[in-house]
Amino acid sequence: MTDNNTLYQYSVLSALMAGLYDGGISIEEIKSKGDFGVGTFEELDGEMIAFDGEFYQMRSDGSARRVSDSSTSPFAAVTFFKEEKSFNTLCRSNKLQLQELILEHTPDQNNNFIAIRMDGEFEDIIVRTVPKQSKPYKGLAEVTNNQPTFRFDRLVGTVVGIRSPEFSQGISVAGHHWHFISEDRKRGGHIIDISAIQAVVRVATMKDIHIRLPIDKHFNKADLLKHSASEAIKKAEG
Amino acid sequence: MTDNNTLYQYSVLSALMAGLYDGGISIEEIKSKGDFGVGTFEELDGEMIAFDGEFYQMRSDGSARRVSDSSTSPFAAVTFFKEEKSFNTLCRSNKLQLQELILEHTPDQNNNFIAIRMDGEFEDIIVRTVPKQSKPYKGLAEVTNNQPTFRFDRLVGTVVGIRSPEFSQGISVAGHHWHFISEDRKRGGHIIDISAIQAVVRVATMKDIHIRLPIDKHFNKADLLKHSASEAIKKAEG
Repeated sequence: MTDNNTLYQYSVLSALMAGLYDGGISIEEIKSKGDFGVGTFEELDGEMIAFDGEFYQMRSDGSARRVSDSSTSPFAAVTFFKEEKSFNTLCRSNKLQLQELILEHTPDQNNNFIAIRMDGEFEDIIVRTVPKQSKPYKGLAEVTNNQPTFRFDRLVGTVVGIRSPEFSQGISVAGHHWHFISEDRKRGGHIIDISAIQAVVRVATMKDIHIRLPIDKHFNKADLLKHSASEAIKKAEG
Repeated sequence: MTDNNTLYQYSVLSALMAGLYDGGISIEEIKSKGDFGVGTFEELDGEMIAFDGEFYQMRSDGSARRVSDSSTSPFAAVTFFKEEKSFNTLCRSNKLQLQELILEHTPDQNNNFIAIRMDGEFEDIIVRTVPKQSKPYKGLAEVTNNQPTFRFDRLVGTVVGIRSPEFSQGISVAGHHWHFISEDRKRGGHIIDISAIQAVVRVATMKDIHIRLPIDKHFNKADLLKHSASEAIKKAEG
């Protein structure tokens, strides 16, 4: 069993940017590494959100479902989340204000990884869900140029996020990477924009980072340095 | 106990580039994470080389000694090394030829981390040993501008190295990072150049990367992205 608040990541973000969507780690194995996190699925078939040990797949048709243990993921970042601090939003807060509030409560941690959970009532929610791809795969930047987005005026739900330090760009998504799912577990995706009406925010610092690298030929042949370019990742994952 | 061939790294290379040489992990703790690897010591007091569970400190006065468990390291990369493949050098080989030989024996692993051990007879060995620093610390690039270097014509000894993928520049040293110590454990350092007269080479792929990040203020205030610049690292660690 992995320690609490150890970030376990399968593969690196630049591999997704390079269009490596095959195979990966089984949900069964990833569950042994964390009960909380974000990711995607084989063939880039939607967005993963996990918390309280439940893993959900939010697909490009707007549906959401629990994930079977035999599903696989080419990229996932999870942890056994144990909150170190919790606080309430004090007023209606847009995405930037939420990020600033989190920064205030995690001083001097710019170069650490932070796990973030927010439960509450949200509005002006815009999410995207990457659509399942077929070969030959396009890179993530191209896929997200034509991604289905959904807008919800007002929903009760949960945000699961990771804030990664700038130096980790390409390995992870530098800055905030948030996914959302509604309380009825039927709507959600990768957050493009969101505001909180009222929410409880929980955070934990992850000082141990465990990365499992794929060892197959496709991974080893990819130009991951090129696919770590900050602007392209911000466009695809921002 | 950590699995064999899991790379355990304390801190990131860019933190050394930024001049963060204080504190760190104790040798006692790092020994629980690996019996083989490279690194440095508090106040940048020399080069670390470890193999067969023995940890040595090679200092800028040319001396070498076993390290006490209470010593600390601001940067170390270790593994429980278990060779997956071994081969002999077939002729006198310079550094580039050794790296090409290793590449031939580790096909399709450009984006993985490789642990390398070479035991044998070497010549034209040039090593540097970083000198102990005092505050205010200069960054590693500036320190290595004036580093003591030593040249040995011919020595029997051991090379411990890590080959890191290009995308990891800043987190580790992209490319080859080799340290050497002589059979009598009295001479060695960070390899600038080396040729093998005859050596046995052992390699293992490390697909699991565990990074422990410092959580102190100095680490979190450093501009690690700036200090990940590839040219500066190549100059300091090449």
